[in-house]
Amino acid sequence: MARIVMKFGGTSMAGIERIRNVARQVKREWAKGEQVAVVVSAMSGETDRLVNFCREASPLYDAKEYDVVVASGEQVTSGLLAIALQAIGVPARSWLGWQLPIRTSDAHASARIATIDTEALNASLASGEVAVIPGFQGQTEEGRVTTLGRGGSDTSAVAVAAAMKADRCDIYTDVDGVYTTDPRIVPRARKIPKITYEEMLELASVGAKVLQTRSVGLAMKEKVRVQVLSSFGDPDAEPTPGTFVVGEDEIGEGQVEQQLITGIAYDRNEAKITLVAVPDRPGAVASIFNPLAEASINVDMIVQNVAHGTGSTDVTFTVPGAELARSLDVLEKARETIGYEKLVPDTEVCKISVVGVGMRSHAGVAATMFQALAGRGINIQAITTSEIKVSVLIHQDYTELAVRVLHTAYGLDAEDAA
Amino acid sequence: MARIVMKFGGTSMAGIERIRNVARQVKREWAKGEQVAVVVSAMSGETDRLVNFCREASPLYDAKEYDVVVASGEQVTSGLLAIALQAIGVPARSWLGWQLPIRTSDAHASARIATIDTEALNASLASGEVAVIPGFQGQTEEGRVTTLGRGGSDTSAVAVAAAMKADRCDIYTDVDGVYTTDPRIVPRARKIPKITYEEMLELASVGAKVLQTRSVGLAMKEKVRVQVLSSFGDPDAEPTPGTFVVGEDEIGEGQVEQQLITGIAYDRNEAKITLVAVPDRPGAVASIFNPLAEASINVDMIVQNVAHGTGSTDVTFTVPGAELARSLDVLEKARETIGYEKLVPDTEVCKISVVGVGMRSHAGVAATMFQALAGRGINIQAITTSEIKVSVLIHQDYTELAVRVLHTAYGLDAEDAA
Repeated sequence: MARIVMKFGGTSMAGIERIRNVARQVKREWAKGEQVAVVVSAMSGETDRLVNFCREASPLYDAKEYDVVVASGEQVTSGLLAIALQAIGVPARSWLGWQLPIRTSDAHASARIATIDTEALNASLASGEVAVIPGFQGQTEEGRVTTLGRGGSDTSAVAVAAAMKADRCDIYTDVDGVYTTDPRIVPRARKIPKITYEEMLELASVGAKVLQTRSVGLAMKEKVRVQVLSSFGDPDAEPTPGTFVVGEDEIGEGQVEQQLITGIAYDRNEAKITLVAVPDRPGAVASIFNPLAEASINVDMIVQNVAHGTGSTDVTFTVPGAELARSLDVLEKARETIGYEKLVPDTEVCKISVVGVGMRSHAGVAATMFQALAGRGINIQAITTSEIKVSVLIHQDYTELAVRVLHTAYGLDAEDAA
Repeated sequence: MARIVMKFGGTSMAGIERIRNVARQVKREWAKGEQVAVVVSAMSGETDRLVNFCREASPLYDAKEYDVVVASGEQVTSGLLAIALQAIGVPARSWLGWQLPIRTSDAHASARIATIDTEALNASLASGEVAVIPGFQGQTEEGRVTTLGRGGSDTSAVAVAAAMKADRCDIYTDVDGVYTTDPRIVPRARKIPKITYEEMLELASVGAKVLQTRSVGLAMKEKVRVQVLSSFGDPDAEPTPGTFVVGEDEIGEGQVEQQLITGIAYDRNEAKITLVAVPDRPGAVASIFNPLAEASINVDMIVQNVAHGTGSTDVTFTVPGAELARSLDVLEKARETIGYEKLVPDTEVCKISVVGVGMRSHAGVAATMFQALAGRGINIQAITTSEIKVSVLIHQDYTELAVRVLHTAYGLDAEDAA
């Protein structure tokens, strides 16, 4: 007997037909004798509807009341799934965030889970009942409703899995796993059978939308084995294995050769800003990035170009595309302090990242990347690296070409093309 | 300083524009320095949507989970109203059923309110905050979500008013008060300034849809002064007084003459059943009504006709129209036990009721009724009376005529027709 958490997203919960389909998938696992907790999202579109109500009511809405409103979406689907399960002979009940309870910080609309009380949950599971838990929600110490921020249901699922010491946390979604890169760009992309938490974190944060970044971080911290798999197969048949997100120790098992690179991600939602002719003196860089930090703008890649030999230098960096206007505003206001000559924004960029724990023990990963891109005449505008990632900024027009070239260069192409 | 409860129904909460309008009405009272608790319904149509989800998920849905699903409608509007109030400078917060808490019986989907904890509520009101309370919901002793049954928000409002010892419970609705009869039938119907709980109960239970019957019973028991008034006037202006539902002691005040009849109601949703030639022996009537009672079918008017002189008699009674098919089925099955000759259903009937506490001290109310109807050739098929009500069953075709004739006969017509 295993204890498992099954998590279903908004697309899987969109309407009663799909909820019935989810119920059959849950029954399949329950019928094996597993102890099953299910974490559900709101019907797709519902959270948007509720968020829009709040915005309409007041653009400066109270986050405490926002939470009361938007938490209702998952409340509805958890009750409906419990009903659908009972209808096919599976004992089930819903446990709302305040009923378990799931205690969170009081950072309304973006709360963090503190503790999950498992006494009642364990008793329910031990009795053979399926526990249906609305994702995304919890309550503060004082008993007010909280939500975890958009996409928070993945985090709820991992937190529940950690609290109940689950053997596995299966995230059912609209893709059947994590791929070496976006299959829409590279048809020969392969599904990755196992990926480490660290790699998944890097891939999640650079544009692969399969799992919410926070949930991966939590899984890593709590050592929760996560599987990403499709919710759209035959609900009664054993599902095709998806991608397991696990610790590094588990990766070697059964694999003859360790891949150097696990996956390639791209992110078109960055914007580049260049400050031309910044005085080349101590404190110059701080005068640029302090005001951005104060405005809570995340700066990603930073390049300080070769000095002009005139006592001045160019500074280039990237910010999230959605923050570009605000960033320019902050920098315009700080123009005198910084003393730059010109401000040049550029949204026609794309960040390409290659990720793999293999690169820790292998040299030449970056060199392969630069050479492969140079071979196709793709100019690199900026570079950043971490222990298991190399990212380059290129012109957006070359996105698909660059991803394809790198996928081949690192030997990731499937042998039989899809 | 007064303490008041304001209750707004689904039509008043349908969409953000209307919720903003409600917020202004609440602000108007709050700005006078009143302590204000607001009880809200779900947006109109929302509860139906949620109920349909449950039915689709399983016709035999678990009432516990149904409650989790449908209680969300009021949760949403309470959060939104709190946001809308804050947006116009009124401190406000929502208090969900489980947060106060409002404790109910565990009769899910039709729970009864047991107690309302007012400690936190009183502190909130004393601080000048408006308390926004979702109607229709509560929780059991074990902490599961309950709902009170359709239309339960009126009952929530009265219960909250009783618990907080409110000076008044204002029920804002889409009509501006209780009328002497349906103004669509009698344009000269008048708004009743004050009506007793007993009269309102009789009128509510015979077809006047202004207040939920249960809420009136609770108001009577707890001596809560209820006012029914329109939510669609200028939200910033003092509202036109509606109808006060109060104790009998308060009625005489300021009125020169006590009306004999307060109002006239009609109900087309009854069905008549006649059992022809039932053996006229002891126990015959019990053999008819026992199986109906066992099937939880409410029998209303009962007439045992003159015996045929053949040792048999006809028995006529009414049941709710929606229960007719089930009633006939029960009676068909009991045919041998009862021993009747023929079963004659009739849905073309209407029950007309005249209601007034004045009839306690005046004879001749029923006689006036019979005479007025006879004068227009309207045949009476059955009669029932209570201390403050006389009801007759007539053919449905005469409904409007009968109501108009009686309205004039009892001197209820307004002097200046609308």
